[in-house]
Amino acid sequence: MSVFSSISSPTLILDEQKAKNNLIAMVDKAKNQKVLLRPHFKTHQSEQIGNWFRDYGIQSITVSSVEMAEYFAEAGWKNILIAFPVNIRQMETITRLSRKINLGLLVESSEVIKNIQNFIKNPVKIWIKVDIGAGRTGVLWSDQDKIVSLVEQVVNADCLEYAGLLTHSGHTYKAKSVSEIHQIHSESLSRLLQIKKFIQKELKTESQISVGDTPASSALIDWGLIDEMRPGNFIFYDVQQYYLGVCKPEQVAVSLAAPVVSVHPEREEVVVYGGAVHLSKDYAIDPLGRQVFGLVCKPQNSEWSNPVPDAYVRALSQEHGIIHYPKNEIESIHPGDLLCVLPAHSCLTVQAMRSYITLDGEIVETMQSCNR
Amino acid sequence: MSVFSSISSPTLILDEQKAKNNLIAMVDKAKNQKVLLRPHFKTHQSEQIGNWFRDYGIQSITVSSVEMAEYFAEAGWKNILIAFPVNIRQMETITRLSRKINLGLLVESSEVIKNIQNFIKNPVKIWIKVDIGAGRTGVLWSDQDKIVSLVEQVVNADCLEYAGLLTHSGHTYKAKSVSEIHQIHSESLSRLLQIKKFIQKELKTESQISVGDTPASSALIDWGLIDEMRPGNFIFYDVQQYYLGVCKPEQVAVSLAAPVVSVHPEREEVVVYGGAVHLSKDYAIDPLGRQVFGLVCKPQNSEWSNPVPDAYVRALSQEHGIIHYPKNEIESIHPGDLLCVLPAHSCLTVQAMRSYITLDGEIVETMQSCNR
Repeated sequence: MSVFSSISSPTLILDEQKAKNNLIAMVDKAKNQKVLLRPHFKTHQSEQIGNWFRDYGIQSITVSSVEMAEYFAEAGWKNILIAFPVNIRQMETITRLSRKINLGLLVESSEVIKNIQNFIKNPVKIWIKVDIGAGRTGVLWSDQDKIVSLVEQVVNADCLEYAGLLTHSGHTYKAKSVSEIHQIHSESLSRLLQIKKFIQKELKTESQISVGDTPASSALIDWGLIDEMRPGNFIFYDVQQYYLGVCKPEQVAVSLAAPVVSVHPEREEVVVYGGAVHLSKDYAIDPLGRQVFGLVCKPQNSEWSNPVPDAYVRALSQEHGIIHYPKNEIESIHPGDLLCVLPAHSCLTVQAMRSYITLDGEIVETMQSCNR
Repeated sequence: MSVFSSISSPTLILDEQKAKNNLIAMVDKAKNQKVLLRPHFKTHQSEQIGNWFRDYGIQSITVSSVEMAEYFAEAGWKNILIAFPVNIRQMETITRLSRKINLGLLVESSEVIKNIQNFIKNPVKIWIKVDIGAGRTGVLWSDQDKIVSLVEQVVNADCLEYAGLLTHSGHTYKAKSVSEIHQIHSESLSRLLQIKKFIQKELKTESQISVGDTPASSALIDWGLIDEMRPGNFIFYDVQQYYLGVCKPEQVAVSLAAPVVSVHPEREEVVVYGGAVHLSKDYAIDPLGRQVFGLVCKPQNSEWSNPVPDAYVRALSQEHGIIHYPKNEIESIHPGDLLCVLPAHSCLTVQAMRSYITLDGEIVETMQSCNR
């Protein structure tokens, strides 16, 4: 009996083999280049799935919040980088973590470095967050004097160990092609190497370089002169990554099984129980410029099919998913059927769903689950 | 000491008085018109807040899922309408509910009515979902023959009690002005009354009329010839409703307190710990056509201020909120400060946050909380 027969409400399904294949490919790529793979765990948020990474030799990880660092520290991870600017309101928890594990923190202002110094008594690694052009957080790459002065402040502080320069080239997510991803990555790298040289010259200090985004790490064979790579999404991939050209739909390792509740052949639409509270309200832009909240597959034996051509989730309400479904196929769809939606953005779908089941029906808990 | 002093990570705050004022205004409006107010509980999702409604005489409620019906049935509610097309994969739970409470269900196809008949042995109320122009679910209003044949099927079925015609004029959410909301509401109503007459003529059967959307119920003084009104969002309101012109910012009863982690005067931006996993990725469109993920207020004594003019959340990542903050005010903002974000869409923010605290620091649990 397939996993689908027991499903009555929206359920996130994980194809374990696909996820493991994605993992192996990334691990191999890092090994071949002798780059440290420090995977971002914000995508799967799961102790169980974290253990797969351990099986493939991973020992250092990235997380996006202090809470996530605590969760994975409890799960036995000893080397954790919180890739989010230090929130000084959480210094007590951060200090507690610094006593237990090898902790990495991100800073971008003198004010925050001073604050950390006042709390931390055990050595922590400090990375300077550089805004390489994504325009979110970090010191702008061109402000080399400010970067050097922050590095100097860190180098001179007790218990703070300067690690290097860290960036997230988030603008690769807006790239239109793999060659544009390549171009953004090269540009980022040459800027970082320039800053690294400047720091060497000014302070006689070495900087490691940490970059991390799934588009570049997946699309490029050669990551260039970096020390560590921090992709997260690659473990599951999703429709955004597919449209970026960095994965195939058959590599997407999670899908939301959603019951059909309403069929409208006259307007080529199917409505499923599976809405914004399940998939999240994030979308991808397809090659025709349309907002796509997910691509639609069919249960097939004990897996899901490739996406049904020209079927996609065109809108989401709180509990409803409104699917455009092609006319010639819609007659085969009935209330009570299940459709499997590949999410636009798997990280946010996992967060919304809190747990998933494998194709064998095994439950995978995350840090968002209530029963963990 | 104000509630803000204890906050270290993103926290949803509820201004109880504002919410109660919103509730009283709606209860009074319904009373004056002798219309049944059947509030939608998908916004607050909380047993505790549900009790406030009870204090104001509410006995019949609306929910958006079978799971939510179970939660509120356990909390003692005896008259619950599930305003979502029946998902026949959940017929066992629906049947169980029908034995405990006065249950209302939504149907739009003969196939599903037959399925319900096969399960249900206790009387349930059946509403025909009419698509009045929103184009989501329901039988299109102009297909009166189909509507009559569904009503006939319900009337002739044992244990199914025909209630009437139900619609959600979701297209009021896309209105550009209150007069457009008025126009959509009047048009919906005249269509429903026309169908009601046709059913009277064909089947000698009376239909109740149930409509429900926060824009129309808030903006209009006279709701017209309806039997029940089912608004949900009005209890908290949000930026979407404010831009629609149906509430003032000072009526928005929830805000997300988010710690500042990064300040960028040169590009007039502040970054807070408070992202898509806290606010949801939903947005409102402001009068200038910009995507607004929230409006930004400041903690002020033990409340939050009115929105800071020209400050708004312009983008969200998983954990980051990127706020445009006006140049002349940004110098006063520092890492570690809190900002209070009025959500674009409060229903989805509540769902994401799972619980909130009042201005007095009391915790309010929802059906999404783990400790309930």
